[in-house]
Amino acid sequence: MFFHEPELQYEVTVEEPDPQFAKELQQAIGGVEGEMRVALQYLFQAWATPAEHEEYRKLLMETATEELGHIEMLATAVTKNLRNASESEREDAAQDDAMRMMMAGQSPRQILSAGESAMPVDSNGFPFNGNYVAASGNLAADMYANVMAESTGRLLATRLWERTDDPGMKDMLEYLIARDTMHQNQWLAALETLEDPVPVPASFQQEQENQEFNYAFMSTRRDPPEDPDLPWTQGDAPDGSGEFSFLDEQPGGGTASAPSPDPSVYDEPNRE
Amino acid sequence: MFFHEPELQYEVTVEEPDPQFAKELQQAIGGVEGEMRVALQYLFQAWATPAEHEEYRKLLMETATEELGHIEMLATAVTKNLRNASESEREDAAQDDAMRMMMAGQSPRQILSAGESAMPVDSNGFPFNGNYVAASGNLAADMYANVMAESTGRLLATRLWERTDDPGMKDMLEYLIARDTMHQNQWLAALETLEDPVPVPASFQQEQENQEFNYAFMSTRRDPPEDPDLPWTQGDAPDGSGEFSFLDEQPGGGTASAPSPDPSVYDEPNRE
Amino acid sequence: MFFHEPELQYEVTVEEPDPQFAKELQQAIGGVEGEMRVALQYLFQAWATPAEHEEYRKLLMETATEELGHIEMLATAVTKNLRNASESEREDAAQDDAMRMMMAGQSPRQILSAGESAMPVDSNGFPFNGNYVAASGNLAADMYANVMAESTGRLLATRLWERTDDPGMKDMLEYLIARDTMHQNQWLAALETLEDPVPVPASFQQEQENQEFNYAFMSTRRDPPEDPDLPWTQGDAPDGSGEFSFLDEQPGGGTASAPSPDPSVYDEPNRE
Amino acid sequence: MFFHEPELQYEVTVEEPDPQFAKELQQAIGGVEGEMRVALQYLFQAWATPAEHEEYRKLLMETATEELGHIEMLATAVTKNLRNASESEREDAAQDDAMRMMMAGQSPRQILSAGESAMPVDSNGFPFNGNYVAASGNLAADMYANVMAESTGRLLATRLWERTDDPGMKDMLEYLIARDTMHQNQWLAALETLEDPVPVPASFQQEQENQEFNYAFMSTRRDPPEDPDLPWTQGDAPDGSGEFSFLDEQPGGGTASAPSPDPSVYDEPNRE
Amino acid sequence: MFFHEPELQYEVTVEEPDPQFAKELQQAIGGVEGEMRVALQYLFQAWATPAEHEEYRKLLMETATEELGHIEMLATAVTKNLRNASESEREDAAQDDAMRMMMAGQSPRQILSAGESAMPVDSNGFPFNGNYVAASGNLAADMYANVMAESTGRLLATRLWERTDDPGMKDMLEYLIARDTMHQNQWLAALETLEDPVPVPASFQQEQENQEFNYAFMSTRRDPPEDPDLPWTQGDAPDGSGEFSFLDEQPGGGTASAPSPDPSVYDEPNRE
Amino acid sequence: MFFHEPELQYEVTVEEPDPQFAKELQQAIGGVEGEMRVALQYLFQAWATPAEHEEYRKLLMETATEELGHIEMLATAVTKNLRNASESEREDAAQDDAMRMMMAGQSPRQILSAGESAMPVDSNGFPFNGNYVAASGNLAADMYANVMAESTGRLLATRLWERTDDPGMKDMLEYLIARDTMHQNQWLAALETLEDPVPVPASFQQEQENQEFNYAFMSTRRDPPEDPDLPWTQGDAPDGSGEFSFLDEQPGGGTASAPSPDPSVYDEPNRE
Repeated sequence: MFFHEPELQYEVTVEEPDPQFAKELQQAIGGVEGEMRVALQYLFQAWATPAEHEEYRKLLMETATEELGHIEMLATAVTKNLRNASESEREDAAQDDAMRMMMAGQSPRQILSAGESAMPVDSNGFPFNGNYVAASGNLAADMYANVMAESTGRLLATRLWERTDDPGMKDMLEYLIARDTMHQNQWLAALETLEDPVPVPASFQQEQENQEFNYAFMSTRRDPPEDPDLPWTQGDAPDGSGEFSFLDEQPGGGTASAPSPDPSVYDEPNRE
Repeated sequence: MFFHEPELQYEVTVEEPDPQFAKELQQAIGGVEGEMRVALQYLFQAWATPAEHEEYRKLLMETATEELGHIEMLATAVTKNLRNASESEREDAAQDDAMRMMMAGQSPRQILSAGESAMPVDSNGFPFNGNYVAASGNLAADMYANVMAESTGRLLATRLWERTDDPGMKDMLEYLIARDTMHQNQWLAALETLEDPVPVPASFQQEQENQEFNYAFMSTRRDPPEDPDLPWTQGDAPDGSGEFSFLDEQPGGGTASAPSPDPSVYDEPNRE
Repeated sequence: MFFHEPELQYEVTVEEPDPQFAKELQQAIGGVEGEMRVALQYLFQAWATPAEHEEYRKLLMETATEELGHIEMLATAVTKNLRNASESEREDAAQDDAMRMMMAGQSPRQILSAGESAMPVDSNGFPFNGNYVAASGNLAADMYANVMAESTGRLLATRLWERTDDPGMKDMLEYLIARDTMHQNQWLAALETLEDPVPVPASFQQEQENQEFNYAFMSTRRDPPEDPDLPWTQGDAPDGSGEFSFLDEQPGGGTASAPSPDPSVYDEPNRE
Repeated sequence: MFFHEPELQYEVTVEEPDPQFAKELQQAIGGVEGEMRVALQYLFQAWATPAEHEEYRKLLMETATEELGHIEMLATAVTKNLRNASESEREDAAQDDAMRMMMAGQSPRQILSAGESAMPVDSNGFPFNGNYVAASGNLAADMYANVMAESTGRLLATRLWERTDDPGMKDMLEYLIARDTMHQNQWLAALETLEDPVPVPASFQQEQENQEFNYAFMSTRRDPPEDPDLPWTQGDAPDGSGEFSFLDEQPGGGTASAPSPDPSVYDEPNRE
Repeated sequence: MFFHEPELQYEVTVEEPDPQFAKELQQAIGGVEGEMRVALQYLFQAWATPAEHEEYRKLLMETATEELGHIEMLATAVTKNLRNASESEREDAAQDDAMRMMMAGQSPRQILSAGESAMPVDSNGFPFNGNYVAASGNLAADMYANVMAESTGRLLATRLWERTDDPGMKDMLEYLIARDTMHQNQWLAALETLEDPVPVPASFQQEQENQEFNYAFMSTRRDPPEDPDLPWTQGDAPDGSGEFSFLDEQPGGGTASAPSPDPSVYDEPNRE
Repeated sequence: MFFHEPELQYEVTVEEPDPQFAKELQQAIGGVEGEMRVALQYLFQAWATPAEHEEYRKLLMETATEELGHIEMLATAVTKNLRNASESEREDAAQDDAMRMMMAGQSPRQILSAGESAMPVDSNGFPFNGNYVAASGNLAADMYANVMAESTGRLLATRLWERTDDPGMKDMLEYLIARDTMHQNQWLAALETLEDPVPVPASFQQEQENQEFNYAFMSTRRDPPEDPDLPWTQGDAPDGSGEFSFLDEQPGGGTASAPSPDPSVYDEPNRE
């Protein structure tokens, strides 16, 4: 069950409205690296977590709810970059050329579809897609998905930070970057509470997997090299259950082929 | 530059063709957890890796090329499950009821669009989507994305393994599960070669992020609890650069609001 | 800014778990008529509403937050329908045939991708799409979009209600249907507070539109009929600003044609 | 059954070709607010309407067929804005810089994929999507969907009208705006012919819905306010069947939780 | 400009309604091989065809308009398969088990979203996508696209014909198959009217392409074979402008590598 | 099974990096006319080809593998256009205005999501979609699909060639254009090896299709013209099995109508 207050989670100010930046900010709202993804990902993960793992469910719900507030902050940043143009700029924009120019670098749909507002789309106007959400029903897989999501999310925020000189926008992004630092750390901390989480899923009986190829680095070079003695071709594997080796060939499994389909699918080139 | 041989990477046999399983196998081909995703992800990551990180580029290319062979194995498994029905079964299928029944549990497009073949779609018939591919241009983010991809990939393979009794299919999946074990380990090994990869991106000067909220767990409960003394509310953070703390409130940043848009977007309910 | 409590908004119980119903319930989560759509629609509309229309912003935020809780209820209903099978059923399912049968009518991804959980997708497994969200930046257009969304939402809920005999599911749906009744009414009430909202956008100076065709019903029949004297071919138009008339022909505007493109696009069939 | 004539429905002229406007016009062709949506929506609604509601089927078919002609007009407008550049402009464009500049504000695919033509995509190049079409099988829901579609459609047309000074384009848009006025009115007139259409679907026996929450405005504020005495918290509801009330709390339904999944989905972090 | 008549283009009858077949028919409506694709493809191709190729524009418009009538026929076939169940079957369906069974093999959205009607989606419920439409702005490319579209369309129709015993459905499909025969032939006839259409685009000055590799079959086998003397490794090429040859190696172009990106994208693993 | 070498298939150089061109090149990677489409199309076609058509399977695999190398070349071209800016340009870009300007014409995601790299998306940032792949299970249909794919691919390459003056980019495109010439020819040569491939599928017994309408050009003009004596209204049809004729009317098949749906879908406007 959810509640809200009409206050932002953190201050959002814009000194020099910048419609181009309003477009780029969309990546952090509806993009694959954005806040809609993490908010929904943590929610669906939480809702899949059974009672015996209640601490993780709580952790996920706390953070998911915070992310909802980040979407709100970014949507506010978008409208402030699109709408807060000064009177004189508006007059300019009324002139046809200026408006054309402005539109050239902008997302046309922020104006045409949304009336100078934020949308659940990315910086190319591509709509948010439910398949961005990783909620696998396995806690370790989900934690890795979350570390990954916060990594690409923080990377995006730092790239946006590079692209603006506006002090308000920089301050907002520095807050969001800090939160991504925290969230990366908390998911890693959660991983550390799991006993031998790797290889995911840890509950699959490892003796049932093929024992010949589960720690072998397999070269696919046309002209296979010698073992290059790299951290992934020799030494203990990080999961502690095997030792890396090097194979200079793929095993090979007989000629690839397909059986004939049923005649009712009309496959043949020229059947009598 | 790529080459091929008409041999499979590993043997693929089917004793009892099962059209329903042919549909489920599609998840491992064109699904978000499937082999098209990892093959393309490693390729695009490799192509973005500059010369000074050549070892990583090689690692990525070797594995990407192997994954192309996994798609081929799974496509072969699909045609063998769809087409290898015995003569007697074909006769049955010619009877209307049996065909209807078979279709009910099948992907209609494997027959209608593809003539009893594999397709670049998932188990619901949803087409592969380029946005599944994470190639961020940051090596640590990419490695976490790869651990995550192999985790959900191995999880999918174990679930498919549970769903079949066919010895050939079990054997093929045990090979793929083993390769996912290796790949999870190799990406983790690659992460270990990076110096302090977390928080990603490590090259962002951490003093530029907000210092008040970067290691604080922030409760979003309506009725905030006391510090629950959990691994993510106290103690050293996994990145080694901060200490977890607990906040029972979100900071708050003033009333959320949007400026008025330009009149040319016709926002108002009833302007004079 | 958002908050949560670990309580559901309304009770969700399932007496007889039904995996087929778990699939159908997805339509109410990630479908175009579902709760993710309305939750996000009201949020983005709220975030676009300027300060001078604060009452509407509040109305939207209150309802959006409620809808987040509906997604949570439905996700709970999905896991309870997928997972709460009795021990004996689980044993049955362990038998290959039973599992195949169960899978035939199920969404394979609820198991393969999500481990018997809810997903942000519809009943065909098609992922939620950000373009479902209508937030136009015009209050009247948004209110009509909301009446429409709640109409198709309530229709979906009644169809789901017809499809289950489970008392717990019926009770949950009766609650959701009731809330849709309220929400339809509140958006209509909001429309009534607007002065002459139709035609949307009311602020476009109506004398600037073409005056010949703005209240004329135009037949496109090959053999045009006489004026059928219907409520949309005669009498006062609902907006109170014009009178319906009947035209038995489309106006016609000269031969349709395209100019020649630039040669650099290589359009021509056989240029010398 | 359909027919055509090689004449446009209404004249389309362009005095000053504008490739940027050609991109924006795509929103009115393949966008969620565009003419492909309404044309297909009215067709699929018509095809679902049974014989006993023949008048509505006719109304829908008449209008759908008109909308097909609007797509044709807009496609013509696109080619005229892309192709009708004067000779001197073409010469300029042959110079590399000018072409680059032109491309910057353009949809690259209008040139690269379509050879300076219109496409079934929106102003961001996002392809038309069949899920934009609302055809619910319930007449009242469909009529509200149509009012909504024409509202966002007219809003889009007025925003495009603001963005051009070309007399031909203004004239075309004034025609389309007028038609949207008519269509909004006709769908509202059709709603008026229905007996008590709200709440949709009216045929669901209202006593079967939960009677406690079907006219109650439910606050989701963290700190719930007093009844604000607004048009949606007191007084008769627009459907005439209930009276609005105010609730300062969500009902609450016990702790949210998920049952444990079957072990075969490998959910657990570290099962023995 | 378009017109309609309330008559179907060809009779559509169903003797034994079959909800499963109603789902499969969706492939012929909104699928990539379906009638929405060809109707829109021919329309957008026509609208791009300049005045000097008027005969082709007319040809395209005539056929596009016919295809609109095919969508109508198929939508009618869907409702008749979903709705025309006898009274006794309806009574059965009222029993929970029967309805569940029926739903298992059906598209849930035909009922839940559309009230037993056709939708602009394919047999998996995947929505029609504007990118299915090929309208390249080059007549020869378009004609090949049309031959291809009618080939996969006719193939789909024959596969559907195999799947039904209903005399009405067989008769409808035999009509649609016949029309696909005609359309394949007419697009080939149109290709024959073009002077040397291959290679497309014929107007690109062929001496500007690389002359070493434009008629050479290039083996990508790891262990390259000898020239297999096949119709594509020796003899005159079909375009009449070159002679096939065989290369046992790809040319090779230096080590693949990527330059270093700008530091502002934070690419590096661990920059000081 | 696949192999790779770290060499490019053909040299890729860029003299003057051009971020706008980097965006346009994406169309040739992840666009519907691009190399990901053909690579995957030929792979899935090959995997569906049964043993008795082994020559075609080999042909498809050889070419598919070559296309993988084209994606690699284009990805390299993208990074070289995005990253190889001179030091002085980088300094300029560090200035806010220059970076803004550069971004206006660029794909924001090439920077924000990919750190100045190529992505599996098109020139609008729309992700590659598995439904672009045509692999029908019928050889003739597939060969036509391949001719079509190479036609639109070569057309795209010539349009890109027009848009750049960079000698390296021109040289790379001239190589790719040459390969498209070869591939168009080889698919046509393969078609010539088939006996009477048209109408596709040739194995459907042609006497089972409707014999009245399978070679008749059917006018859909509102005012039907006389037979225009065109190559598609008279003379022998290209498939050699029929003679074209002209019909000035569509056959007509009775009034279009839909049966009443089951009451459980709540269709009616106002049921008692």
